[in-house]
Amino acid sequence: MDPDQLFVKIANKEIPSQEVYSDEEFYAFRDINPGAPTHILVIPRRHIKRITDAGEEDALLLGRMILVANKIARQEGIAEDGFRYVINCNQNGGQSVYHIHLHILGGRPMAWPPG
Amino acid sequence: MDPDQLFVKIANKEIPSQEVYSDEEFYAFRDINPGAPTHILVIPRRHIKRITDAGEEDALLLGRMILVANKIARQEGIAEDGFRYVINCNQNGGQSVYHIHLHILGGRPMAWPPG
Repeated sequence: MDPDQLFVKIANKEIPSQEVYSDEEFYAFRDINPGAPTHILVIPRRHIKRITDAGEEDALLLGRMILVANKIARQEGIAEDGFRYVINCNQNGGQSVYHIHLHILGGRPMAWPPG
Repeated sequence: MDPDQLFVKIANKEIPSQEVYSDEEFYAFRDINPGAPTHILVIPRRHIKRITDAGEEDALLLGRMILVANKIARQEGIAEDGFRYVINCNQNGGQSVYHIHLHILGGRPMAWPPG
């Protein structure tokens, strides 16, 4: 399997995951190796390798990805106490899977700098 | 001064900053207390306190904020090696100024978990 396709397969339920949210454009699931008590990944169903591969035509998709994350943060009860959104790009960013994903981390105070 | 207005004043050049990028919708400047060799903040000129205060009508603005960050990452020469985008919300997230801002951190390998 092309490891870049891992998240497409997760979104398509070909690989099991702990679903948190699902709609036509996005799928969200719990990170299997959580970095905080609440750690969720939001992915667009469309395969875009890295955030820098997104173009002007993807502006609405990227904005909606954040709005979906906001909805999930409320649903998880971490919106009021607070949380951190993280997007990693390429090696220095620590990107592990080459399919855009937004990390939501909460349930504890997040330290600074962010890694 | 209302501390929430700090970034509006920075974007309006009423308070000096190291400008990196500017357009009608966004302003970007170097973090005065950098957490990485390259550490830039991208802010919308419009005052929105927290990311969870953004509504459906802000989807395009949020998406464009990421596209502007991509442009800056390329301009700064960190796109290929990689970088991390971070948005903090409320206390657990470590949000310090209550005006939406996207952190771009690069120039070194970023560790995990992200804070």
